[in-house]
Amino acid sequence: MTGSVSDRAAALEQRLRRGPFHTWLDLRVVAADEATVRIRATWRPEWENGTEGRATHGGIIATLLDLTADWAIANVAGDPAPTLDFSVQYLRAAGPGDLEAVGRVIKSGRSITFAEAELYDTAGRQIAVGRGSYASFVAGSA
Amino acid sequence: MTGSVSDRAAALEQRLRRGPFHTWLDLRVVAADEATVRIRATWRPEWENGTEGRATHGGIIATLLDLTADWAIANVAGDPAPTLDFSVQYLRAAGPGDLEAVGRVIKSGRSITFAEAELYDTAGRQIAVGRGSYASFVAGSA
Amino acid sequence: MTGSVSDRAAALEQRLRRGPFHTWLDLRVVAADEATVRIRATWRPEWENGTEGRATHGGIIATLLDLTADWAIANVAGDPAPTLDFSVQYLRAAGPGDLEAVGRVIKSGRSITFAEAELYDTAGRQIAVGRGSYASFVAGSA
Amino acid sequence: MTGSVSDRAAALEQRLRRGPFHTWLDLRVVAADEATVRIRATWRPEWENGTEGRATHGGIIATLLDLTADWAIANVAGDPAPTLDFSVQYLRAAGPGDLEAVGRVIKSGRSITFAEAELYDTAGRQIAVGRGSYASFVAGSA
Repeated sequence: MTGSVSDRAAALEQRLRRGPFHTWLDLRVVAADEATVRIRATWRPEWENGTEGRATHGGIIATLLDLTADWAIANVAGDPAPTLDFSVQYLRAAGPGDLEAVGRVIKSGRSITFAEAELYDTAGRQIAVGRGSYASFVAGSA
Repeated sequence: MTGSVSDRAAALEQRLRRGPFHTWLDLRVVAADEATVRIRATWRPEWENGTEGRATHGGIIATLLDLTADWAIANVAGDPAPTLDFSVQYLRAAGPGDLEAVGRVIKSGRSITFAEAELYDTAGRQIAVGRGSYASFVAGSA
Repeated sequence: MTGSVSDRAAALEQRLRRGPFHTWLDLRVVAADEATVRIRATWRPEWENGTEGRATHGGIIATLLDLTADWAIANVAGDPAPTLDFSVQYLRAAGPGDLEAVGRVIKSGRSITFAEAELYDTAGRQIAVGRGSYASFVAGSA
Repeated sequence: MTGSVSDRAAALEQRLRRGPFHTWLDLRVVAADEATVRIRATWRPEWENGTEGRATHGGIIATLLDLTADWAIANVAGDPAPTLDFSVQYLRAAGPGDLEAVGRVIKSGRSITFAEAELYDTAGRQIAVGRGSYASFVAGSA
């Protein structure tokens, strides 16, 4: 990764972590280029759903997909945009461990931007995928 | 509410709160009858997304919708079921404050159960709605 | 039904049927009040998916849900709005026969309107449900 | 394309076209390999929604996405599977003209298979994307 890409990731991470829930998830922007962002969240015991072995709660998974798609928009458009709707497919359970999501914009528009993300565990297994519509007409919102 | 309904809610709450993320969300089963469950989550500062005033993070909203739909299944079928996919519509931002979701089963099947939930703030405004498919063929899972 | 409600339904049906695909589906506005519209489509052999007995193709089902939700918007706001995204849950197969959908607006906004619909066969069985986001900022479009 | 790939596409097309709605859409399997299928539908005037210039009805678009994802399953697993739910994002309007969808399996399982598709017009513009869950536990169904 070049210095400028690292700078981009670092700048994005700084803004991303202003959100209290993002801080709680201990989010890190692992990579950011013109097309995608990669965000890692650090596992914590509160993530467990209490059943299915020690699986991570689906709500954490949906959260990571939605916010990574949204910050893929921020990476391209300057600001994240409020989620209008979001749809998640849960492919397999995630055991205890950090999770990493890759987000990208599908199509950006003045009013609506479509974006998507995929979530992986540390073994590289794809855990879930998600897509949503974002209100890009709301300037400077998140 | 009759005593038996309260008993039903109390029994559901006891199981629900075994999940560490559910404890973190401080979930309470406010009501449970043959058709619906009503679950309240207690606001905490970590919920904020850090933008849009002090709005609650969309990931918390998606989490509450999914788990309430799932525990509407548990209320009817005995056990929650792993979420296969879930779709959320975000109707308006939620400021700081507790949130309450009402869940119900749309159609239960041996293999797949469809369920949905609606989320409200303490002023009774509808914040979001969600629907999903659940793997009811996985016995005793959540 | 009062005369004025019938007039509302008749006026809506006249506009609805200007669409060639709507004519092919032989759509009829069975009822329309301040909150909902009910639209019936007439079965034709081309609807069959060719498997599962003589089940109606899921694409026809998705079509009826989406357009009925959209014309619930037209009924309230004056014009249908382009669909941004739509999500369908298929509850059971529909055999040969007419289908009837009930649509309603979940929340209308200047920019985005959320709407939903439910589909029934002539025996009153619920076949499918769907929800979507519509671009209400696009005036006069459909 | 090798002869064996053509054979695969031809065999798939023959089965696909047994469905009356598929015949009405004049579907052709343009390509099929181990991972994807590409299906073309031939424009007909009944596709128009009657507004927005002469745009193709969103129901046709949803239909093509769902069935292409489903036949991507058939291509891998031997049989299509009933759709449990499907979610579509509409990126731009499609004018009069043939449409072509590319489908692939996201994750196949004994009980549930996730699949997706993307739709393009003849100018190569991406019109819409869709994803769904399919009941792969129902053997030989479609």
